[in-house]
Amino acid sequence: MNGWMKIAYNEATEGMLANDGGPFGAVIVQGDKVIATAHNEVLKTNDPTAHAEINAIRRASEQLGRFDLSECILYCTCKPCPMCLGAIFWARIGTVYYGATEQDAARGGFDDLRFYEMIRGHNNDVIFKQVDYEVNAKLFDQWLEKDDRQMY
Amino acid sequence: MNGWMKIAYNEATEGMLANDGGPFGAVIVQGDKVIATAHNEVLKTNDPTAHAEINAIRRASEQLGRFDLSECILYCTCKPCPMCLGAIFWARIGTVYYGATEQDAARGGFDDLRFYEMIRGHNNDVIFKQVDYEVNAKLFDQWLEKDDRQMY
Repeated sequence: MNGWMKIAYNEATEGMLANDGGPFGAVIVQGDKVIATAHNEVLKTNDPTAHAEINAIRRASEQLGRFDLSECILYCTCKPCPMCLGAIFWARIGTVYYGATEQDAARGGFDDLRFYEMIRGHNNDVIFKQVDYEVNAKLFDQWLEKDDRQMY
Repeated sequence: MNGWMKIAYNEATEGMLANDGGPFGAVIVQGDKVIATAHNEVLKTNDPTAHAEINAIRRASEQLGRFDLSECILYCTCKPCPMCLGAIFWARIGTVYYGATEQDAARGGFDDLRFYEMIRGHNNDVIFKQVDYEVNAKLFDQWLEKDDRQMY
């Protein structure tokens, strides 16, 4: 087994046995150094965003003191869900190694596959309504007028 | 302006002026009660996942002591990015009111629109490689064999 993936795998089994959450683990590596390890903690923390990958990204950012993890590689036991994939994009992580797939997660009772279908346009579950467009759109003009703005 | 959206809007302007992050605010409401308010804190915390919606979901879950926010409504100043949309799915939020769009965010220099295109299959930015499939897929068998597993 890949050495980094083994660390992610051990996180997954530990988290599952501790009832912290589902069987998901993740590791973020920079060069030959582990920056952060994590497992799913949705049940432990009651935080629906506490997936292994999100937790690992949060910890790596804290560890490195920056929101840009473009020099890092992520190893995760299962293909990231849409939320975690979005977090990977924002963190500018360039390479992801994954083990199982969203089909395996679905077999375990998790909604990753369904959520991928929803995010790709087959969303009948969440109602979206637009209100107060003009004033909210102008927030971005105020942002662009800000001399000291820092992009991320 | 919608009263709940006004709270989200005020969060967005406060966060932007404090240099906590971009001009994004969110509020989670249950019935006629505000459960959580938040703004983007990516710059303040160096956490790339600290979007307004994610922060609001985390705070609401903590406030209510549960990961299921299906009785709640989310108001956000801009249409949620893919990461936040995924978090909305996992939190089981049923209704989202939004103001500006991903096109407005793009005008402000944010990657929401590009990340939507990437998540829908036009992803040439992140390299995905599969390793150790079998052992990681078996994690879900171990999960299904667990008598005390709690789904989420």
